[in-house]
Amino acid sequence: MEKLLEAARTNGSLLCVGLDPDPELMPAGMGVLEFNRAIVDATSDLVCAYKPNLAFYEALGTEGLRALEKTVTYIPDAIPVIGDAKRGDIGSTARAYARALFETLGFDAATVNPYMGYDSLEPFIEYREKGVFILCRTSNAGSVDFQDLVLSGKSAGVEGGERPLFEVVALRAREWNALGNVGLVVGSTYPQELRRVRQLCPQMPLLIPGIGAQGGDPASAVRYGVDARGEKAIISSSRQIIYAYLGEGGKGGDFAAAARGAALKLRDEINRYRGHT
Amino acid sequence: MEKLLEAARTNGSLLCVGLDPDPELMPAGMGVLEFNRAIVDATSDLVCAYKPNLAFYEALGTEGLRALEKTVTYIPDAIPVIGDAKRGDIGSTARAYARALFETLGFDAATVNPYMGYDSLEPFIEYREKGVFILCRTSNAGSVDFQDLVLSGKSAGVEGGERPLFEVVALRAREWNALGNVGLVVGSTYPQELRRVRQLCPQMPLLIPGIGAQGGDPASAVRYGVDARGEKAIISSSRQIIYAYLGEGGKGGDFAAAARGAALKLRDEINRYRGHT
Repeated sequence: MEKLLEAARTNGSLLCVGLDPDPELMPAGMGVLEFNRAIVDATSDLVCAYKPNLAFYEALGTEGLRALEKTVTYIPDAIPVIGDAKRGDIGSTARAYARALFETLGFDAATVNPYMGYDSLEPFIEYREKGVFILCRTSNAGSVDFQDLVLSGKSAGVEGGERPLFEVVALRAREWNALGNVGLVVGSTYPQELRRVRQLCPQMPLLIPGIGAQGGDPASAVRYGVDARGEKAIISSSRQIIYAYLGEGGKGGDFAAAARGAALKLRDEINRYRGHT
Repeated sequence: MEKLLEAARTNGSLLCVGLDPDPELMPAGMGVLEFNRAIVDATSDLVCAYKPNLAFYEALGTEGLRALEKTVTYIPDAIPVIGDAKRGDIGSTARAYARALFETLGFDAATVNPYMGYDSLEPFIEYREKGVFILCRTSNAGSVDFQDLVLSGKSAGVEGGERPLFEVVALRAREWNALGNVGLVVGSTYPQELRRVRQLCPQMPLLIPGIGAQGGDPASAVRYGVDARGEKAIISSSRQIIYAYLGEGGKGGDFAAAARGAALKLRDEINRYRGHT
């Protein structure tokens, strides 16, 4: 989490770029590693973090996983890499996942799913040098199905009264943050829920996806997502940045230059809302 | 799901063997693929399914994933293979995971996490030839943290009244089962919750882990887990079977023979509770 704050300050940026390689959108014939390297080269002075989503690599088989390992190694040491894996499993298995993400793949942080409860997250949180972002209120439409369900007063427990499930997750995560390495994932597509989570957890880093292709608005992501100092929001965008070239006249364009342009624009837009210029 | 029923009938078995290779427990110097092949050779006439948990393979890097691919290919076609992955992510990413599990790795079914809601599960359920087991009430101690939280009457919705979250998940899963390829994961370590889920979902296949090392009891797993015909319960055990040789005088023993012995014993015990002999 310190590395994250440092990178954000050095690069004057709350922008996190999602590295989600999709062969159908990447320049024809280009390998995943080559693509990622070019994106990293073009944007590493503009971001506070990178966030590869493991699904895109797993879909490419062992080849994809190897490209992921090499991408993590390639990213400059000063920039934290968040493994967006959304894992969650029982004790011994969670330990295997934590080892896979933090040791085998070498991520600085990972996203995890809270449904199975504390003992499924503890093996991640125990890595005190690593960050753990717990899914809280996600950016997708289906997030209402369970995350918004209102608990009965007694069950919601903490601080009394009825609360939606995602608020209880936020409050539990706050309790579990004894080592200071826990954050939450809250989608930018639900600004009021983001505001609520920031109120409940004024100190915790929030990973905020959903900007761009999913329709999240950078203005409210900043307004409701940052802490009292205007920090600790990691505002993540994937397709809008890495496939920016597809919006500029098709696959002939320079994808890396287009990604840099889009990242610069979004970083600066975010900073304007933070009151920086 | 038909393949599952078929295998269960052919082998007279509700036993599913978890293929969770752990280098610290496997015979010294043995590779994952070699180990899995020997376990499969020794048990494939005694099981209704195999269930590799992806964490154990991912912890071994691309090497592990390759061994997993080859294991799936090696398992006889008549025996379904359930990829225990507990995935869940937003639409486009969930599609990548579904492709990774069902196409790249070739599983017949997969476990998924419901926290992100229907649109995160839909890309799995859309594979009508594949099975989808939704986490409902898991076998670990932490399952009480969120799965047991009681929803307010209004929020619990279906059939009125206050309900714990896991029951709402079960009811939603029932609604989402239009193609008949959805099941639930319910741990054997909580027999009353298992009974409740079976009452709510009399027709759905239940994947029931937690037998053996985790302390689940085969008697109640059968009594509360099977459907009205004594079927559709997939009772899963990993360590108790595949590392049975460690209980018989240490690493010198014949691990495959010990696994066969343990699988035979547990299959027969399960069948006794089903009223078969």
